[in-house]
Amino acid sequence: MFKTAICDLLGIEYPILQGGMVWVSYNELCAAVSNSGGLGILAGGSMTADELKAEIKLVKEKTHRPFGVNIPIRKPGSENLVDVAIKERVDVVCTSAGNPKQFTQMIHDAGLKVIHVSPSPQLAVKAADAGVDAVVAEGIEAGGHDGFEEITTMALIPQVVEAVGIPVIAAGGIADSRGFVAALSLGAKGVQIGTRFAATREAQGHSNFKSAIIDAGPAGTVIAGRALGPTRSVKNRLTDQIVEMEKRGASVEELLKTIGNGRSRRATLDGDVEDGTVYCGQIAGMIRELKSVDEVITEIIEGAEGLVKKLEQLATL
Amino acid sequence: MFKTAICDLLGIEYPILQGGMVWVSYNELCAAVSNSGGLGILAGGSMTADELKAEIKLVKEKTHRPFGVNIPIRKPGSENLVDVAIKERVDVVCTSAGNPKQFTQMIHDAGLKVIHVSPSPQLAVKAADAGVDAVVAEGIEAGGHDGFEEITTMALIPQVVEAVGIPVIAAGGIADSRGFVAALSLGAKGVQIGTRFAATREAQGHSNFKSAIIDAGPAGTVIAGRALGPTRSVKNRLTDQIVEMEKRGASVEELLKTIGNGRSRRATLDGDVEDGTVYCGQIAGMIRELKSVDEVITEIIEGAEGLVKKLEQLATL
Repeated sequence: MFKTAICDLLGIEYPILQGGMVWVSYNELCAAVSNSGGLGILAGGSMTADELKAEIKLVKEKTHRPFGVNIPIRKPGSENLVDVAIKERVDVVCTSAGNPKQFTQMIHDAGLKVIHVSPSPQLAVKAADAGVDAVVAEGIEAGGHDGFEEITTMALIPQVVEAVGIPVIAAGGIADSRGFVAALSLGAKGVQIGTRFAATREAQGHSNFKSAIIDAGPAGTVIAGRALGPTRSVKNRLTDQIVEMEKRGASVEELLKTIGNGRSRRATLDGDVEDGTVYCGQIAGMIRELKSVDEVITEIIEGAEGLVKKLEQLATL
Repeated sequence: MFKTAICDLLGIEYPILQGGMVWVSYNELCAAVSNSGGLGILAGGSMTADELKAEIKLVKEKTHRPFGVNIPIRKPGSENLVDVAIKERVDVVCTSAGNPKQFTQMIHDAGLKVIHVSPSPQLAVKAADAGVDAVVAEGIEAGGHDGFEEITTMALIPQVVEAVGIPVIAAGGIADSRGFVAALSLGAKGVQIGTRFAATREAQGHSNFKSAIIDAGPAGTVIAGRALGPTRSVKNRLTDQIVEMEKRGASVEELLKTIGNGRSRRATLDGDVEDGTVYCGQIAGMIRELKSVDEVITEIIEGAEGLVKKLEQLATL
């Protein structure tokens, strides 16, 4: 059910990818998603090459199904992470933040698939031209680093679908069967889900971090740091401070100095959800309890079947 | 086909409302939408009471089907517009920007329906408590004045649907059958479409204005004037100037002084699309040609039937 081109491409049961979230997407979450029929993705962005190697080993102890690694390729040292992904034989490399051209051939030659995350039709076309197998089109409602273009999922997906000839995976604002069917309606062949998986038992992260997502509410996230690149996280003392600085026209240097390093780790691992950064999508308003990965995926697929039946009745009434 | 609670409530064939866009939604557009099976809505926001009266008369000469008037109720003199809508017996009053409580009883007593536009679950609940018959939940991708909460349609619709017991109409990011089916998937009982109808032959507006929408492209709109209330329009010399002022921390007073009055009229009627405000939704990137109202509505309904069939195949494969 809901077998799309993405299922065929990646050898998975359901077209549901789990976003590679820094400090969150470690072996337990990744293996759980793959075991439930989706594609688990490790967060290379918060790992050294050695850590990634160890995490891949742990995933392979927990599942024999396909899984992937997310690698923000603009980050210094990303080539080492790509090396590990190839040598340790993951199934998919999901590249983000940068031009995938430099790595696509090498990854393909090793027999792995490449998916690139794009926040605009223009960048999706660039990725398709670079030879990636599929693109994740990510709307501005997504948590973490978003595109400068600030295009929402609703407006973005059909435009990317029309612009590229490869399968498109929708991301941003999707947490349940409604978002899943909406994404397919917009022309996506699958979804990538972040925040909903961050609020699962299998996700790595402090209980304060998971509670901050569950308690965020409908208007509980904010885009901060636009001058550095829009980033969505839970509103807290830190984002209030950044937004205030932006309002009075603070420079990029001032912003960088205030934000400093390690804010995401501080919230996600240490549980400091006031002065750390709780990366979180706007759909947090629909997330009201901690669930298991299997519950999340089962509810999406079963809910989607019911939803499509309702749509069919509407169309023929 | 696609007969929902909104069709029953408003006595229309398809659950498609046309947004009441200032300077754009006049008698020709309104009547055309109603004649094609949707609900045409006059833009009370850019009319005096006398003008509204004359426009209603013209609509009634062109259609016998239901239609409505949008009234931004926070605007001084809005009570006069409400009076006209009641006396001239339109079918629906669509209130926006303000608390609908002050007018709902009066409008209902006169036998008209009331729909309120809300950009957040919280404000939708307030409107439902005030007794309105339905709410339009409008995401940040919509053109014109948006909510301070900046919630996208994808994240907003299911939250409003869960929060209120009355039918929800989705707005923002919808221009074709894909957006229509996506909105229904998210739980909406209908859609309100603005920008796509602004780029029709029947819409009022200078050809430069319509061309600006058609030429906008995927990243061609911008939110400007956040301190005054987020407003989405086509990027041009004016928005560049405002965004630049915002970056250097300009005050509300400075912004108001620079923007002044009449910017929307200047773009929409006079065709000055560089120093006027071209209100426009982000979905403009999907709008590539001028169409007739009937083409737009027919394509949505026929496309949606095909789309639902495809979804059904996916669900049962």
